[in-house]
Amino acid sequence: MRHDHLITSKQLSRADIETVLDRAAEIDADPSAVADRHANTLLGLLFFEPSTRTKMSFETAMKRLGGDVVDMGSIESSSVKKGETLADTVRVIEGYADALVLRHPRQGAATMASEFVDVPLLNAGDGAGHHPTQTMLDLYTIRENAGLDDLTIGIMGDLKYGRTVHSLAHALTNFDARQHFISPESLQLPREVVYDLHQSDDGPGIREHETLEEVLPSLDVLYVTRIQRERFPDESEYQKVAGEYQIDLETLEAAADDLTVMHPLPRVDEIAPEIDDTAHAAYFDQAHNGVPVRMALLDLLLADGGDLDE
Amino acid sequence: MRHDHLITSKQLSRADIETVLDRAAEIDADPSAVADRHANTLLGLLFFEPSTRTKMSFETAMKRLGGDVVDMGSIESSSVKKGETLADTVRVIEGYADALVLRHPRQGAATMASEFVDVPLLNAGDGAGHHPTQTMLDLYTIRENAGLDDLTIGIMGDLKYGRTVHSLAHALTNFDARQHFISPESLQLPREVVYDLHQSDDGPGIREHETLEEVLPSLDVLYVTRIQRERFPDESEYQKVAGEYQIDLETLEAAADDLTVMHPLPRVDEIAPEIDDTAHAAYFDQAHNGVPVRMALLDLLLADGGDLDE
Amino acid sequence: MRHDHLITSKQLSRADIETVLDRAAEIDADPSAVADRHANTLLGLLFFEPSTRTKMSFETAMKRLGGDVVDMGSIESSSVKKGETLADTVRVIEGYADALVLRHPRQGAATMASEFVDVPLLNAGDGAGHHPTQTMLDLYTIRENAGLDDLTIGIMGDLKYGRTVHSLAHALTNFDARQHFISPESLQLPREVVYDLHQSDDGPGIREHETLEEVLPSLDVLYVTRIQRERFPDESEYQKVAGEYQIDLETLEAAADDLTVMHPLPRVDEIAPEIDDTAHAAYFDQAHNGVPVRMALLDLLLADGGDLDE
Repeated sequence: MRHDHLITSKQLSRADIETVLDRAAEIDADPSAVADRHANTLLGLLFFEPSTRTKMSFETAMKRLGGDVVDMGSIESSSVKKGETLADTVRVIEGYADALVLRHPRQGAATMASEFVDVPLLNAGDGAGHHPTQTMLDLYTIRENAGLDDLTIGIMGDLKYGRTVHSLAHALTNFDARQHFISPESLQLPREVVYDLHQSDDGPGIREHETLEEVLPSLDVLYVTRIQRERFPDESEYQKVAGEYQIDLETLEAAADDLTVMHPLPRVDEIAPEIDDTAHAAYFDQAHNGVPVRMALLDLLLADGGDLDE
Repeated sequence: MRHDHLITSKQLSRADIETVLDRAAEIDADPSAVADRHANTLLGLLFFEPSTRTKMSFETAMKRLGGDVVDMGSIESSSVKKGETLADTVRVIEGYADALVLRHPRQGAATMASEFVDVPLLNAGDGAGHHPTQTMLDLYTIRENAGLDDLTIGIMGDLKYGRTVHSLAHALTNFDARQHFISPESLQLPREVVYDLHQSDDGPGIREHETLEEVLPSLDVLYVTRIQRERFPDESEYQKVAGEYQIDLETLEAAADDLTVMHPLPRVDEIAPEIDDTAHAAYFDQAHNGVPVRMALLDLLLADGGDLDE
Repeated sequence: MRHDHLITSKQLSRADIETVLDRAAEIDADPSAVADRHANTLLGLLFFEPSTRTKMSFETAMKRLGGDVVDMGSIESSSVKKGETLADTVRVIEGYADALVLRHPRQGAATMASEFVDVPLLNAGDGAGHHPTQTMLDLYTIRENAGLDDLTIGIMGDLKYGRTVHSLAHALTNFDARQHFISPESLQLPREVVYDLHQSDDGPGIREHETLEEVLPSLDVLYVTRIQRERFPDESEYQKVAGEYQIDLETLEAAADDLTVMHPLPRVDEIAPEIDDTAHAAYFDQAHNGVPVRMALLDLLLADGGDLDE
């Protein structure tokens, strides 16, 4: 299977994913080997909504490969304000760059945009749609810390609105992973996501929980997400719910010694800072893993033919 | 003739223009030949008003020559807000860069600024003044598609406020070009521009029209510009006028098969998307041509002595 | 003495300062010798408040050493808005970069941040705290123009709120410098700064004045700072005071022929433009000196072991 664009992690088979993760691991082990590999390559950055972290990570990845970026900047100062369509914008910026990264608030924007350009386009998040590079760096982090075979993972927090979570959960159905979803009832996985996961899964399956206690001891990985204040009608309701899904050293007493704690960051109060210095904490490594993973994806898409499984 | 700065296309003779266009064509044919030509060169970007497209194109051009940019960023966060004069700002930033690109809302700003700096300064638009790199990329696109000899061009839309149009029309008086200007009466070329064109022209001359029909069959190139809503007292007036200066496949039935359609972009409704996939459409190429043309200009100005006709 | 971070110029001994200034002078004399010295190096820019000039200078310095930058951008679009702590932000961005530059409105921010990262961190100003690279470029400019031995310097303007001034004054106590402070009574040096200077000084000492006249003839260097309108209750009060601390050609008739005039820029009315073309004016050179000085600091901190006095 060949890919010219990266729109969703769903387009990737288990073999494709392993190709990317293997390449990322090679790069991570010896970044200097690729430091000039894509010299004279320009990556066009089209961020139609702010996402500093993702943008910096892509920019770093391209520069660590010897290339550079050209950035459309904020849409406030762009032609978009004059009524230009997304199709026109990507066709113009395609002329400046050898590949494009698109972030857009509208679901489906990346697919649509990819139809208008000849250079590889990478989706950096399209509304409630997909964010495949986040999923790949999550998978990479899980593989580095706990392995993707015979994995037991807990995914906790806001499971209703979390695009990251849906995408990761789907990708994990390709592997031998037991998935536990832990959230307040009001922030459970949407029913269609649960249905979709059950359909896709050929592994040990998924289960839903309201408390962490019942599954914590069995977990290899605990993936924590932020519960957003604005999801709740009032502050006291938020405080009550959010407090139950925060973890600290005391919480982790019931966990396995080699439990890996992940978080897509930024965090607010979900993980107590006292965990940062323990061997459990993998969330800063996880953020840093965005660089080798995006380097691998860019390297594979920019290679002759733009083929993710060369 | 020597130029240390590029302030207006009026400073360029026909021979100068051809030097630039020839160099751009060479670069376009083999960009890799110049990929490291200006390594270690920094271009300072001073955009006192937003112009993402022009800025990206300059940035791409400098990077495609092996160099890099330093960007003053938006004036909201700059020393300009503290009351610094333009003369002081350019003198400080001159210390960071090997050449400067200036965009400024005030007519004459580029000339004034150029008097304070020793490095080459390129005008990227100064209010109702000049925008010579836009004119050069327009000329380049015309030459590539229809040639600049024995040319019949129609320029349509907002001819009153369009700086791009005045500058292009003036530059075309250097060539054997018949120019037709098509616009509603309220958006005709200013009388002083018409006078100036008649004075400069030694070719077949210029004519003004209110409808496209009467000239369309004779045209080699149709250059369409955007009619801005805000020029009209009310929406219905705008709709009536704008509608008459929009083109679609049906409009083009009366045109020559090899008519080239150009537009400085962004477009709104002036050119129907159904034209995009026809051989007429040159507007995306036109935008992309900004890169080799700006590479040529930078290359010539950065060469020893900063001489546009080396 | 070794330094992994650059937080304040107070951490630098006279020998350290001279190491930096010597390295800057070497670089200034032959920038091409270091043009690729830090190829493949990325400098992370974290500006929690706008400071275009300082940011451009750091960016230029890194690029003149062959490296590149990754910029967090404005905090409006960053994770900071989602409630992320400074400690988390620096730990994430540390993963993208080989060194960090931090500007933050809160005093002490640089020290705190430096405790969380393993890469060198350079303080680019932390509130009313320190701004060591500004001090170093001021010292470099003084040394180039008047020498740091047997120096008589006047520092004039807003001495109360000027972080730049306090830091420079302190650094000068390492040298054989006679310091005269000239300001309206309401903008005198804070008493604790005066006390601190007297404690540190082993040279010919400091004195305070209300008018320039009494010391001007004796000065080697006159360092002028901006008096900010907003420090005064009303406009007329400001005009009266500010006017007394502005200089023009007439003022300088009483000065030595080789007086060097400095200003951290931007200036408003403190120095008349007619001085710009005289041999007195060193303020644009001073701004430009930020580049070799920051190149020297980056070079020393990025060298194996990150040692400012290698």
